[in-house]
Amino acid sequence: MAQVRHRMTKPAARGRSAKPAGKNAVRKRSGRWTLLFEEGNAKMRDLLGGKGAGLAEMSRIGLPVPPGFTITTEACLEYYRQGRRFPPALMDEVRKRIRVLEERTGKRFGDPANPLLVSVRSGAKFSMPGMMDTVLNLGLNSRTVEGLAKATGDRRFAYDSYRRFMQMFGNVVLGLKHEHFEEMLAALKGRRGVTLDTELTAKDLEDLTEEYRKVVRSRTGKEFPDDPWQQLEMTIHAVFESWNNPRAITYRNFNKIPHDLGTAVNVQVMVFGNMGPTSGTGVAFTRNPATGERRVYGEYLLNAQGEDVVAGTRTPKPIEDLGREMPAVLRQFMDICALLEKHYRDVQDVEFTIENGKLYLLQTRSGKRTGPAAVKIAVDMVGEGLISKEEAVLRVEPASLEQLLHPRLDPQARKHVIAKGLAASPGAASGIVVLDPDEAAKIGTERKVILVRPETNPDDIHGLVAAKGVLTTRGGMTSHAAIVARGMGKPAVVGAESISVDEKARTFSVNSVVVREGDVITIDGSTGEVIKGEVPVIEPKLTGEIQDLLAWADKFRTMGVRANADYPRDARTAREFGAEGIGLCRTEHMFMEEERLPIMQQMIMAATEPERRKALDRLLDFQKEDFKGLFREMGSLPVIIRLLDPPLHEFLPRLEDLLVEVTELRLRGETEKLREREVVLRRVRALHEFNPMLGLRGCRLGILYPEINEMQVRAILLAAVELKKQERIDIVPEIMIPLIGLTNELRVVHQQLEQVAQAVVKEAGIKVRYMFGTMIEIPRACVVADEIAEIAEFFSYGTNDLTQTIFGFSRDDAQGKFLHVYLEKGILKEDPFQVLDRVGVGELMKMGTQRGKKTRKDLEVGICGEHGGEPSSVEYCHEIGLDYVSCSPYRVPVARLAAAHAALKEKTAVTKDV
Amino acid sequence: MAQVRHRMTKPAARGRSAKPAGKNAVRKRSGRWTLLFEEGNAKMRDLLGGKGAGLAEMSRIGLPVPPGFTITTEACLEYYRQGRRFPPALMDEVRKRIRVLEERTGKRFGDPANPLLVSVRSGAKFSMPGMMDTVLNLGLNSRTVEGLAKATGDRRFAYDSYRRFMQMFGNVVLGLKHEHFEEMLAALKGRRGVTLDTELTAKDLEDLTEEYRKVVRSRTGKEFPDDPWQQLEMTIHAVFESWNNPRAITYRNFNKIPHDLGTAVNVQVMVFGNMGPTSGTGVAFTRNPATGERRVYGEYLLNAQGEDVVAGTRTPKPIEDLGREMPAVLRQFMDICALLEKHYRDVQDVEFTIENGKLYLLQTRSGKRTGPAAVKIAVDMVGEGLISKEEAVLRVEPASLEQLLHPRLDPQARKHVIAKGLAASPGAASGIVVLDPDEAAKIGTERKVILVRPETNPDDIHGLVAAKGVLTTRGGMTSHAAIVARGMGKPAVVGAESISVDEKARTFSVNSVVVREGDVITIDGSTGEVIKGEVPVIEPKLTGEIQDLLAWADKFRTMGVRANADYPRDARTAREFGAEGIGLCRTEHMFMEEERLPIMQQMIMAATEPERRKALDRLLDFQKEDFKGLFREMGSLPVIIRLLDPPLHEFLPRLEDLLVEVTELRLRGETEKLREREVVLRRVRALHEFNPMLGLRGCRLGILYPEINEMQVRAILLAAVELKKQERIDIVPEIMIPLIGLTNELRVVHQQLEQVAQAVVKEAGIKVRYMFGTMIEIPRACVVADEIAEIAEFFSYGTNDLTQTIFGFSRDDAQGKFLHVYLEKGILKEDPFQVLDRVGVGELMKMGTQRGKKTRKDLEVGICGEHGGEPSSVEYCHEIGLDYVSCSPYRVPVARLAAAHAALKEKTAVTKDV
Repeated sequence: MAQVRHRMTKPAARGRSAKPAGKNAVRKRSGRWTLLFEEGNAKMRDLLGGKGAGLAEMSRIGLPVPPGFTITTEACLEYYRQGRRFPPALMDEVRKRIRVLEERTGKRFGDPANPLLVSVRSGAKFSMPGMMDTVLNLGLNSRTVEGLAKATGDRRFAYDSYRRFMQMFGNVVLGLKHEHFEEMLAALKGRRGVTLDTELTAKDLEDLTEEYRKVVRSRTGKEFPDDPWQQLEMTIHAVFESWNNPRAITYRNFNKIPHDLGTAVNVQVMVFGNMGPTSGTGVAFTRNPATGERRVYGEYLLNAQGEDVVAGTRTPKPIEDLGREMPAVLRQFMDICALLEKHYRDVQDVEFTIENGKLYLLQTRSGKRTGPAAVKIAVDMVGEGLISKEEAVLRVEPASLEQLLHPRLDPQARKHVIAKGLAASPGAASGIVVLDPDEAAKIGTERKVILVRPETNPDDIHGLVAAKGVLTTRGGMTSHAAIVARGMGKPAVVGAESISVDEKARTFSVNSVVVREGDVITIDGSTGEVIKGEVPVIEPKLTGEIQDLLAWADKFRTMGVRANADYPRDARTAREFGAEGIGLCRTEHMFMEEERLPIMQQMIMAATEPERRKALDRLLDFQKEDFKGLFREMGSLPVIIRLLDPPLHEFLPRLEDLLVEVTELRLRGETEKLREREVVLRRVRALHEFNPMLGLRGCRLGILYPEINEMQVRAILLAAVELKKQERIDIVPEIMIPLIGLTNELRVVHQQLEQVAQAVVKEAGIKVRYMFGTMIEIPRACVVADEIAEIAEFFSYGTNDLTQTIFGFSRDDAQGKFLHVYLEKGILKEDPFQVLDRVGVGELMKMGTQRGKKTRKDLEVGICGEHGGEPSSVEYCHEIGLDYVSCSPYRVPVARLAAAHAALKEKTAVTKDV
Repeated sequence: MAQVRHRMTKPAARGRSAKPAGKNAVRKRSGRWTLLFEEGNAKMRDLLGGKGAGLAEMSRIGLPVPPGFTITTEACLEYYRQGRRFPPALMDEVRKRIRVLEERTGKRFGDPANPLLVSVRSGAKFSMPGMMDTVLNLGLNSRTVEGLAKATGDRRFAYDSYRRFMQMFGNVVLGLKHEHFEEMLAALKGRRGVTLDTELTAKDLEDLTEEYRKVVRSRTGKEFPDDPWQQLEMTIHAVFESWNNPRAITYRNFNKIPHDLGTAVNVQVMVFGNMGPTSGTGVAFTRNPATGERRVYGEYLLNAQGEDVVAGTRTPKPIEDLGREMPAVLRQFMDICALLEKHYRDVQDVEFTIENGKLYLLQTRSGKRTGPAAVKIAVDMVGEGLISKEEAVLRVEPASLEQLLHPRLDPQARKHVIAKGLAASPGAASGIVVLDPDEAAKIGTERKVILVRPETNPDDIHGLVAAKGVLTTRGGMTSHAAIVARGMGKPAVVGAESISVDEKARTFSVNSVVVREGDVITIDGSTGEVIKGEVPVIEPKLTGEIQDLLAWADKFRTMGVRANADYPRDARTAREFGAEGIGLCRTEHMFMEEERLPIMQQMIMAATEPERRKALDRLLDFQKEDFKGLFREMGSLPVIIRLLDPPLHEFLPRLEDLLVEVTELRLRGETEKLREREVVLRRVRALHEFNPMLGLRGCRLGILYPEINEMQVRAILLAAVELKKQERIDIVPEIMIPLIGLTNELRVVHQQLEQVAQAVVKEAGIKVRYMFGTMIEIPRACVVADEIAEIAEFFSYGTNDLTQTIFGFSRDDAQGKFLHVYLEKGILKEDPFQVLDRVGVGELMKMGTQRGKKTRKDLEVGICGEHGGEPSSVEYCHEIGLDYVSCSPYRVPVARLAAAHAALKEKTAVTKDV
């Protein structure tokens, strides 16, 4: 037996896994279903719930907490194991605990002369708002209420407390709706001719309790229970039951909280902040939760209850003011705040009540904070020696960095939101409305411009470059405007369908609001809001604290972080934000630039291969210079270049526009122009696809028209050769062949291009290394990844397309048509285009990675879909053993931090397992 | 040792696994690299190759085969094992074997007086046409040719044989191109002023051999080898080498033939059919390979060699004629045919040569036959007691049944093919061209009509119903025309892009051919051919033999076979063809019928749910009657009904057409009509999707517009209730919710519809069972199949969409744009939309099936994609444990046979494993 005991306590002795050991120890030691607050501690969240553990810890370290005890989660679980019946000894134990509270307070539960009142609160391990049932003032009945009135000398207070108790008990325990009680209250006020609760007298409230009693009788067929013990037993019962009510189950399903944790129940002596001018209540953060400033930040109200602070009927005062009214209490409180922060090694969010000049703490928990505050607090606390660098890194949610890296609207400012679209590219911008891209390009250098279009296309690129932000009324998250804006790090709101643009009148309108060209608007690409007029914007800063934090993160993470960048200027931004390479350079945008698009179109309109080659020859030098620019920015860092991917019709005018144009020309009899446009129409028709997403694009293009790929590979290798020769920059370009689903596709394309590459290198007469790899973005590629890895030297998961094909969702269609409904109905918890779907997409990624690395041990595996900059997705990439993530330059810091989180969490998990 | 020996021979004693045991036994017994023909037998294909085993078997049973021996595949493998060198003893053995041949023939190898000549032929286990190298007349040189001339008394014959040998040797062994020799021959004919080879004299040919000698010298730098032993050794070497030439490797890769089999080499005494009027050569089948008639079917030529029969310069005579010329030889041959067939228990394809009145057999192998012949032969042979029913079933390729179930063009007829499109729905039909569906509907009852359209849409359904076949110039294998035609079992050729239809001129043209409305054309939906004029068509018959064969197949198979049927008439056909239920009833076609489409369109144009419900109420009765009709046909057999699947815009006019129409109305100033059409345009635009395949369809529709599904489920249950009450037909409808990718989708839709179903049943007051299940057609569904099976009672793989999403191929786009290139280049071996891709799609189906059945043991799993009627796919479905396959009614017999094959093959494999 001693042997067994030794084994059981061993983990606790090591300082790890203390929770279960502690839990078991408690069960063993006492065999009890309840713990007095001072018997518990902060580590016992499993057994006492979050609230209970906080109250226990504060009691244990001697802070002024109203006495109380916690009914453990074990009791709740036992309740369900026994078919929803209390464990036999439970109520006996509760009675004993109440006796202890009576001794400590000198009051007696149910004593008409000096009644003990308690609060009963649920409290699970993880916060579950919406099922946190609370009953205050329990112990009141028609006799004890008189005792309370006498003891406080405030009859109105006593009856107000009583009617509040009845209302809460009626709702939480008896299951009656709030409205039934509210109706009575309203009717009473009507009869008394008053509008505010506070205008009701003690007598009114006494009458109201009688009304409540009648409601309960008529609705439940039973009397409202007067016996405090019965009240208590019923309330505990109700709290236990609430663990398994449908909304709690749904909440846990949705948040992946296990169903076998149970809830604890906290029973605590009531203290009142509304007993007069020397009473009060308040909340405080131990540091400023908005800025992180190291100074207690809080508010209080005298002669008030928590409800009053929340209701906002009176304006709370800043905590500092308490120094004038009750200096000793403030000093005590400040000391406690300092102590709590030191004790918990984190910012605390504290609730307190002052009853007749005496301070009580009612709750402490980790304080929620903004992104900037989180960073500052974490870095400060390392400086203060409070926490380690690992802890500091883990304290900052990676997603919270995002708000620091884009201009954002001043949260204090007023704004007149006139429409909402898709939040396509984060950040905020104000500027004058311009409907015409040429105009935008013209005046964009001198004035701040917001380009507003039904949708954008490659012809509009100069306008996009010149604008501060873009707003479209059509298109989804992968529309041209959205992609280009994200790439440039500019705010974009797209698919704002309630807006209609009148290009002739040079206006746009939404509902009754008409906005003229030249009017100022503001768009918020992080929320999708379109706002009339200018809203002050806060510019992002990579503060010293962020730099420190990210430097620590870089030490902890094991995954690389690259950026998706198409232009040298993006590459520069990426490096500034800490990218260690380019994970995806999309070459198609290069063909959309002004001087190149006509050549590209010539190439597409060409009838024969020689004609196509002629046009491509003219593009070769452009491409070579593109790549040289990019390589130069990146020095010797890795650069992955994806060969041309989109369907060719994306470079031609839209079929719909052509149809209208040709019809017009036909009816107007403009024969010559008609004939010319009909040629284009025919080609566009021939290239037209029912589902372009699944059509002739990616490697399929290269199989049909090898000359396009050949030109690109030649340009890549020539760029590498010339840089090495002329500028001594030694780059190893990684050439990525997109949309591989069949090993044979890669085999054919690779053979063609390997020859081209070898020829360039041979001709140059110097040694240049290069790699060929593929984008994994087709489900089948994941299945045959072992075969593909025989040829590919690297994989990069294109999770945008992979999500589209694995879900069978066209992103452009889904986001406008049904995805929002899925999210509203809870069919999807998150947009799978934002947060990687681990169950479906993730499983196939795991399969692909395992199979690929089995064939080729040193296979380089990364991700270049938008998920590469989303924290939960980055964590998953770490878990399945990816070598790096790649994301837009502006999300690189987020990815760095997220990768560090993943590595640190894994380390902790491993240590725990030992 | 005795013990071991006993074990090794045991399988052979059982009559199974005789091959490997036999092989080992031979190697053991002899340690030899060669076998005389009479030392081998038919079972030794592994060791002797197919050709060698046939020659061995015939020799063994005493048929007149020119003596010879086979160099084993083991020798070839040893050659490669030893770094491409002959096993040391090989040539010694070969020499000994040649001595045996010399003894038997009385001739001597290399003897100028009476030379022994041999043929050398490769022969692997599996036929590999294109690498079967052959050298005839080996042993000739400038001296032996004279001996041959003397021995035959025909100097021209001798030199012709010699130059043929040189040519073959030069090509096969020395690697020279045919052209080099052909040029010489042509030059010689030029000099002699003749046009035919036969006009050349002995002297000419003698000169030619000198020319050939020079070619060899100048091209290879070496003398043409005169030593027959050297010739033989070099030829064997060349045949071994041919096993690993690139085209052989490619062929084996493509046909999944293992690379470690090696080839055998057959060395055989030459016999000559061209030695005069009592010599000859021919080929024969032991039964008619076209009809299966039990009568030898063959052709021969006197004084000729095999080449002459193949070249077609002379017309061979029917085998019967030999009775007049050499009756004894014919009698002998007929006896041999009877014997061979009995011996091999199958139709044989025999090659023979008569040399100076003496019959020799040169080859026997299983005879290739047409579908009808295969069926007749198999069933006849069971009647004759030659083979078992299992064997008979296995003898008929399931795919060969397909040609029996559709009208097909008379293969004898001439045809003027003017265009080719996609073979979208098998069968052939002739009729007059009609361009207008209304016209087709009007005259289709009286005349045979082929409907010709750029493409069809739901409005054209009445024309499709009336036509004998349909031809479209646009669209792919899943275009409206293709799907509807397949469903109706009518021939269709779609996407014949070289044809342009001029609807105004009422013509269509292709290249220079113009076809007017009213002209007769023929389409072949099995080949995609479009033919001018009428071609005689052979109507399909389910002969007694087919019925017998299928009845046997039904006994052997373990998988069910259902049909995809949307209409009662399809259901009737399906039952006639042996379907055991309906695996897929697509309800969308029901909404496309003439009187219903306008109501459907009203529903879609409706702005509010009540308006939609009003329109749906009007469709309820139609739907109910549809289902009653279907259920009535199927009696108590299972019927799976899929809820509405396609995107709603498929029921509205096309965006492109509307754009043109609205532009025209606008320019013409037809304001009223314009306003009306603009309303439709707006709705069509709102519903327009970039990738409709991945858009708002399937269960997504039901989540957004539950009222559509509700109406359908009500109709299904009402139909079941009424049939039970009124006609005592007890049906268990299986309601299929399409396009599930997320378990929550199914949960939400199922909850809604379960309520509707229960309400109908409750109201009816009688018990009606029903099932809810889902179509698995999204990759993600395969991954989460375990979860889905918690709700779904059945799965049906929609492999059309599953193939689209797993490959990332839009079928409509891929088939017209790049799939053909993939097939041509060998990137794909087969069209994955026709033959299930086992590696990708198959693996996910396996995953889905395993996971689904793990959750729900009695989960019913089937397939309703078009693969359900394709033999290889059916086999795979059997392998992964599907419960049934479902296919178009016309393919049900194919599926029944294929399912039997799969079950029988599995049985054999299991027996072998024991």
